[in-house]
Amino acid sequence: MSALLFKGATLLRGGDDWAPVAGVDLLLRDGVVAEGPADGAATVEAAHLLLLPAFVNAHTHSPEALARGRAPMARLDDWLAVEYADGQDALPAARIRQAILISCAEAIRGGAVQVTDHFRQIPPSVKSVAAAASAWAEGGIRARVAMMLRDLPSPSASFTPPSTAEALAVAEALLRDPPPGATVGLGPSAPQRCSDDLLRGVARLAERHGAFVHLHLCETAKDAVDCRARAGGDDPVAWLEGLGLAGAHVEYAHCVHLGDAELDRMAAQGTTMVHNPLANLRLGSGIAPVARGLARGVRLRVGSDGPGSNDTQDMLEAAKFAMLLPRAGRPDAEWPTPEQTLSMATGGHRLVAGARADVIAFDLRAAAFAGAKPDEIVTRLLLAARPRDLRHVLREGDFLMRDGALVPPALAALP
Amino acid sequence: MSALLFKGATLLRGGDDWAPVAGVDLLLRDGVVAEGPADGAATVEAAHLLLLPAFVNAHTHSPEALARGRAPMARLDDWLAVEYADGQDALPAARIRQAILISCAEAIRGGAVQVTDHFRQIPPSVKSVAAAASAWAEGGIRARVAMMLRDLPSPSASFTPPSTAEALAVAEALLRDPPPGATVGLGPSAPQRCSDDLLRGVARLAERHGAFVHLHLCETAKDAVDCRARAGGDDPVAWLEGLGLAGAHVEYAHCVHLGDAELDRMAAQGTTMVHNPLANLRLGSGIAPVARGLARGVRLRVGSDGPGSNDTQDMLEAAKFAMLLPRAGRPDAEWPTPEQTLSMATGGHRLVAGARADVIAFDLRAAAFAGAKPDEIVTRLLLAARPRDLRHVLREGDFLMRDGALVPPALAALP
Repeated sequence: MSALLFKGATLLRGGDDWAPVAGVDLLLRDGVVAEGPADGAATVEAAHLLLLPAFVNAHTHSPEALARGRAPMARLDDWLAVEYADGQDALPAARIRQAILISCAEAIRGGAVQVTDHFRQIPPSVKSVAAAASAWAEGGIRARVAMMLRDLPSPSASFTPPSTAEALAVAEALLRDPPPGATVGLGPSAPQRCSDDLLRGVARLAERHGAFVHLHLCETAKDAVDCRARAGGDDPVAWLEGLGLAGAHVEYAHCVHLGDAELDRMAAQGTTMVHNPLANLRLGSGIAPVARGLARGVRLRVGSDGPGSNDTQDMLEAAKFAMLLPRAGRPDAEWPTPEQTLSMATGGHRLVAGARADVIAFDLRAAAFAGAKPDEIVTRLLLAARPRDLRHVLREGDFLMRDGALVPPALAALP
Repeated sequence: MSALLFKGATLLRGGDDWAPVAGVDLLLRDGVVAEGPADGAATVEAAHLLLLPAFVNAHTHSPEALARGRAPMARLDDWLAVEYADGQDALPAARIRQAILISCAEAIRGGAVQVTDHFRQIPPSVKSVAAAASAWAEGGIRARVAMMLRDLPSPSASFTPPSTAEALAVAEALLRDPPPGATVGLGPSAPQRCSDDLLRGVARLAERHGAFVHLHLCETAKDAVDCRARAGGDDPVAWLEGLGLAGAHVEYAHCVHLGDAELDRMAAQGTTMVHNPLANLRLGSGIAPVARGLARGVRLRVGSDGPGSNDTQDMLEAAKFAMLLPRAGRPDAEWPTPEQTLSMATGGHRLVAGARADVIAFDLRAAAFAGAKPDEIVTRLLLAARPRDLRHVLREGDFLMRDGALVPPALAALP
């Protein structure tokens, strides 16, 4: 692995430090941010570049990359029925690869180098996850693939769910012998689509194998009603905790309809909340309590959600609307700041010595930054910068995009 | 003027016809869409192109192009006080030109060839409008420049407004001897910032010179309260009608806080409502009654609003959020469709014989369109297409962007 020195850059360190510092030499060596002499490092003149940690896409569904634009006026349940019609639940490996290579290109062009793929194929299969893991690796993206699991029928669905035993058997096979190319996790669809036995089984497998768990929670008002019914009147977070599905290895996607007590419980357990502003907007699902979660200490991340409901996979866009969407309905005190939003969208990552060298670089000469004072740079980056202003994307010190061109050979054939 | 034949394109005709038609030969000659033989026309192979009418940006404020990213957590009045500090109200001609050339590049890259510039400099001056008109022409954009007029003080403002007589004198001078390069109109700031005498004077001048009138109306809840107070309890639309400021030559920007009776009155008068979804979102101003206006027969257009509050000038983005923003708070029946949104954002323009050849072309090979069925194309265009997927922008048959590169020489030096 070669070393790279970005010379004279403007740096946004990340984490809770978003004050721009000009004239920084940032050295990347052996995949991490390094200190000390830059011996042998290739130099990139960076006086015109704004460097920051790369974005992390914390929730998507890759099979939807070929099935966008469906049911544009529908809310979640009706949309789901249309989105996964036409064989979308049993794609051949070649289609999975195609969908994911497209997703890789979109991820990189939007500044992300890591993606969590809540991967739906019904029935679940080891083979489909293997195809997904291999395609993400081919496209250069660090992927966490959570096989979607469910064993309850859906009135509107075009599929027959597997039995509880079948679903758990696939999950166990994946964790026991994970396919190379991705970190594999467990993706129960949502509490209202899984039996208690399946959820308990997932919790046991996660503990035994040290795996992450990723599930939808209270995305719509109807989901929240269904979840609270499943929880026997208890709050859904307490109920999931009782089933073993809470803690630092667990991620709840959406959380639009959670209240303060539930957020407090997530904070206490260390469970992550993934905000997907654009899908929530497109599907009319509501506005997640982002700033309220942050204020209570919940670990927050930002996702694009699947291309069927976002409809882009551009994390620069997702970050922008993670900041803006609360302004459509929540009181001013619940508006996240630009800095909070960037921290969520970059996964809390910081460009300090020893940290993974996942770095993106914007061109400060772009219109978005014309005449910017230092204290305007973060807001301009988040609200005004356009995709073409993103010049370089590096994963662990290697270019995935250089001067606006995608580097992974598997992406070269894409338009 | 040369003739161009787009051969074998997929066409979205526009107006109320958004059904994609494949394999169309579209001939552009002498600045308009033409029929008949394509003798002498240069041919553009267009089997991979999606053609539609160019976007029309119906509301911006060009001086803000150099002052973005300010007051990111503020609502309108506080934001205004910060945005126009630091000499923003008295820019030298060179800065006006710089701001507008940047705006031209952004307009073209977002698919717009026409812009309405509600141009604020205080005090108003013929010289500043002349500088603006000339810069828009230089950058290739068809501009309508409405000089912003106001004669009432603002508690938070850093300026002293001109007298009523001074404001009207500048307006009259502009209309009597308009500077070349743009269509000049009258831009009273908003009813609550203008005396009755100024508004009556504007109405008289508009009638005498056949000029358009462009003003903010009921952008925020506070604006609406102030407007209704000014109207003596009457509705603001009726009151403006009484002052002579309603009709087919009049445009109200925002209209977020108008009720049904007011929308009915706008429809009856033919007054235009300009929806600026992103600025409304950024400033927490609310969600305009778009579909309710359409259903009542109001003529609707979409604007970016100024770069200080949008913060991009990308009409593809503005159109997307014109469709999506109502989903954050309005009932399902008030969600505009993709087709309604495209009609608003393209100014109702249709690519039929004799119509102005303002055309944009997207690349159907892009990820946004991968695997698209015909009935998914419009939604994918609006929600999934990215700026880089826009390949050509033509104004009256001439390329402003060709293969992704800006054509006007004045824009060549921009990054």
